[in-house]
Amino acid sequence: MKVDLNCDLGESFGNYTIGLDDQLLPYITSANVACGYHASDPLVMTKTAAMCAASGVAIGAHPGFPDLMGFGRRNMAVTPEEAKAYMLYQLGALDAFCRVSGVKMAHVKPHGALYNMAGKDYALARAIAEAIAAFDDSLILLALSGSEMLRAAADVGIRAAREVFADRAYNEDGSLVARSKPGAVIKDENEAINRVVRMLKEGKVQAITGADIPITADSICVHGDNEHALAFVKTIRARLEAEGVEVVPLARVIA
Amino acid sequence: MKVDLNCDLGESFGNYTIGLDDQLLPYITSANVACGYHASDPLVMTKTAAMCAASGVAIGAHPGFPDLMGFGRRNMAVTPEEAKAYMLYQLGALDAFCRVSGVKMAHVKPHGALYNMAGKDYALARAIAEAIAAFDDSLILLALSGSEMLRAAADVGIRAAREVFADRAYNEDGSLVARSKPGAVIKDENEAINRVVRMLKEGKVQAITGADIPITADSICVHGDNEHALAFVKTIRARLEAEGVEVVPLARVIA
Amino acid sequence: MKVDLNCDLGESFGNYTIGLDDQLLPYITSANVACGYHASDPLVMTKTAAMCAASGVAIGAHPGFPDLMGFGRRNMAVTPEEAKAYMLYQLGALDAFCRVSGVKMAHVKPHGALYNMAGKDYALARAIAEAIAAFDDSLILLALSGSEMLRAAADVGIRAAREVFADRAYNEDGSLVARSKPGAVIKDENEAINRVVRMLKEGKVQAITGADIPITADSICVHGDNEHALAFVKTIRARLEAEGVEVVPLARVIA
Amino acid sequence: MKVDLNCDLGESFGNYTIGLDDQLLPYITSANVACGYHASDPLVMTKTAAMCAASGVAIGAHPGFPDLMGFGRRNMAVTPEEAKAYMLYQLGALDAFCRVSGVKMAHVKPHGALYNMAGKDYALARAIAEAIAAFDDSLILLALSGSEMLRAAADVGIRAAREVFADRAYNEDGSLVARSKPGAVIKDENEAINRVVRMLKEGKVQAITGADIPITADSICVHGDNEHALAFVKTIRARLEAEGVEVVPLARVIA
Repeated sequence: MKVDLNCDLGESFGNYTIGLDDQLLPYITSANVACGYHASDPLVMTKTAAMCAASGVAIGAHPGFPDLMGFGRRNMAVTPEEAKAYMLYQLGALDAFCRVSGVKMAHVKPHGALYNMAGKDYALARAIAEAIAAFDDSLILLALSGSEMLRAAADVGIRAAREVFADRAYNEDGSLVARSKPGAVIKDENEAINRVVRMLKEGKVQAITGADIPITADSICVHGDNEHALAFVKTIRARLEAEGVEVVPLARVIA
Repeated sequence: MKVDLNCDLGESFGNYTIGLDDQLLPYITSANVACGYHASDPLVMTKTAAMCAASGVAIGAHPGFPDLMGFGRRNMAVTPEEAKAYMLYQLGALDAFCRVSGVKMAHVKPHGALYNMAGKDYALARAIAEAIAAFDDSLILLALSGSEMLRAAADVGIRAAREVFADRAYNEDGSLVARSKPGAVIKDENEAINRVVRMLKEGKVQAITGADIPITADSICVHGDNEHALAFVKTIRARLEAEGVEVVPLARVIA
Repeated sequence: MKVDLNCDLGESFGNYTIGLDDQLLPYITSANVACGYHASDPLVMTKTAAMCAASGVAIGAHPGFPDLMGFGRRNMAVTPEEAKAYMLYQLGALDAFCRVSGVKMAHVKPHGALYNMAGKDYALARAIAEAIAAFDDSLILLALSGSEMLRAAADVGIRAAREVFADRAYNEDGSLVARSKPGAVIKDENEAINRVVRMLKEGKVQAITGADIPITADSICVHGDNEHALAFVKTIRARLEAEGVEVVPLARVIA
Repeated sequence: MKVDLNCDLGESFGNYTIGLDDQLLPYITSANVACGYHASDPLVMTKTAAMCAASGVAIGAHPGFPDLMGFGRRNMAVTPEEAKAYMLYQLGALDAFCRVSGVKMAHVKPHGALYNMAGKDYALARAIAEAIAAFDDSLILLALSGSEMLRAAADVGIRAAREVFADRAYNEDGSLVARSKPGAVIKDENEAINRVVRMLKEGKVQAITGADIPITADSICVHGDNEHALAFVKTIRARLEAEGVEVVPLARVIA
């Protein structure tokens, strides 16, 4: 049994610092690195790529909408052509910092509203998958288990990995319960971890309706915004290893 | 005798269109393509890279300061570290569109205030040359004949090409006469072309003081902002060919 | 019979110029001036406010989404709180240039996607109306005839004016036929002008279904992007005057 | 004896939070509020203006260069016309939030590189002073004691207040010793406070050369970036009050 732990990284900007990036690196296996649209800037990207390279954590691109003020979290009605072009711009930009740090970009995880919209909109998902395929068809698209992005990745012929969320409830169709609904967030950490362990061992999770649904977890999304989140990452990693799960970068999970 | 004709291209942005790019392409051999900092956006870059690829014009990056409002024409006190990071970001971004268009980026010409500042400031020039070397050491740095950028390129071990301006007067030290000074701009087109032909045939130009100075012209900078500029490009190209000068991309000039 | 002719103005940005603003000014009575979010910058605003003041054209704010790359034409999922804050920011910014030019801001017309979204979304329309009321409750909200913005203006107690489009087809409910549908745009200029004259004289327009619907035209939206649009403005103004319609600023129409 | 304590406030942006604004407010008398160019956004401005209004702290505008990535700390070669237009834009924008919060803007303190450049460049200082005078000639320009901005304020006929820094060394001409030089920063807090008390009581400060120079302190600049800075503000305020100095907003100091 293998799983990847992925976390958004390098989301500081100019004079603004967020994320406990350096403390988090020893516990994750894949970093989704912001590319300057929803967050980050070239100095932050320089530093982040170097940190990932030094720690052996796999670097992925974390492209988002051109909405720094909204941190890429607001839906924007971009066309597939715009989405494709925005993806290419950001993939290329991050790639320069990977080159300079002597590492190869390993995966791509769209950010925020782009991730959410493309999870449900095939045309948008297709544009994202096409951008990745055109840029480097060895890249892995990291996307929500069951989403349109996975379908698009298969259609354009790139590899994809399925992401799960430890602290989020699932609908019976495998989609995430909207945060606005009661029970959307699993607050008990132990329960959250147990759910992940069951996903890995049994390939199942209990949906919010109570029914068991099948789910495949190639990667678990974790956060590094604050001390509490950092502590949770350490806990989940220790527990996974205690359960005999190997925590390794995406490429080894889906190989 | 060989020379390259280079022109800034792809400087439109969003709803704003500037430059007669499509009409200009048949007459130039190298395009300096804006990378989204001082001008351009991912849709413009998509289109511009495709146009260059289709026409066989060599693509170069035209990175500038992060100052869209000032079109990258205002001096900004960036550190060498910032300059290097801004270069890498823009080189990478443009490279993605080159890849998708099936062409290889050939050269780099810094834009506007970055070009002017780095022409005189070795630390800044060095940061630019280091960024290029780290990104792809086969790229050619296109810079003002006699500038600090050429020195920095030599020091870091990348190729460089020397750019001349047909319509600008030169000081005795080979620098351009500031636009604010009388006689800075050569308004007579025939005289401008004669000067360039002499640079190519004799390796000399008459400085504003009247003295002849040595100059090497690997590439001539032309413009495509308006019908008048476009007509001049056609005229200078025809005249160069009539004089037996081969008009070819940079890589063939400095080979 | 009175009507206002309004046009978007001051949408240039930095090195980018669009709009035949100076040629258009003699023919319009209200200018919707961009405020730096979807278009314009402080130098353009300085010049535009001065031009309007010199020509006696009423100045209105034309606030949009913070999306310069998309020219404010893409829907963005902003909250009412964000919309209200974005309105205030832009109203205040433009107001500074009005003060310096010695004129008083007269109206507000939201731009592009903000205009379209707020036409149908009461919560968004309400946020816009509240921002205007809080900033200066003597301002007139210029909005699509029949839209939610007019309802919101009434609810918060500010004046509103109803805008019509000469060259657009209407649905039976008074909304505009989407541009993507056949017949959405009235291409025959004479027909377009006849429709406007009928709106003014009879208070009616023929919907795309063939049925007559009631409509009130306080202001006609015209464009100044190109020579063709400019010619149309001259034609419609001449025709209106020939029909005995007084072409005057909004405040005099709705007084 | 009276003095004002001023601090930069409202410099958060989007998802990024900096500054202990709410904890600082009880201890300062004037807030310099960022206006969206070097920092802040309309939601932050909404909240900041409301907080200042609620606490009775005087609001001033803190306009900066359009350089969010550099936090307005990098010199930019703007023309006086650009500077004036950027000032007006930001003054107007902030004024909208003051209006909505029911308070009147009291002063203007340029930020970062704009403050430093205008301290030495009369043409730039003059453009700033003219923008303030044109916008609202009752505003107070808060600037470095002895700077060109004070001269420009006098020349255009607006009020000005002289700012001092507790923790910075002074040259004999009254300018600040550059941070790059040894001894530029006074690290001993007690010494820093003693220096300020002497400025207030004797109108003198010991320059870095050892010589006493005359200085007038209308306002002391303090910071609220971290717990340490916050503690210093509390200490200096308590000490000033213990010394019989009244800590009051600028308008009362220079009345």
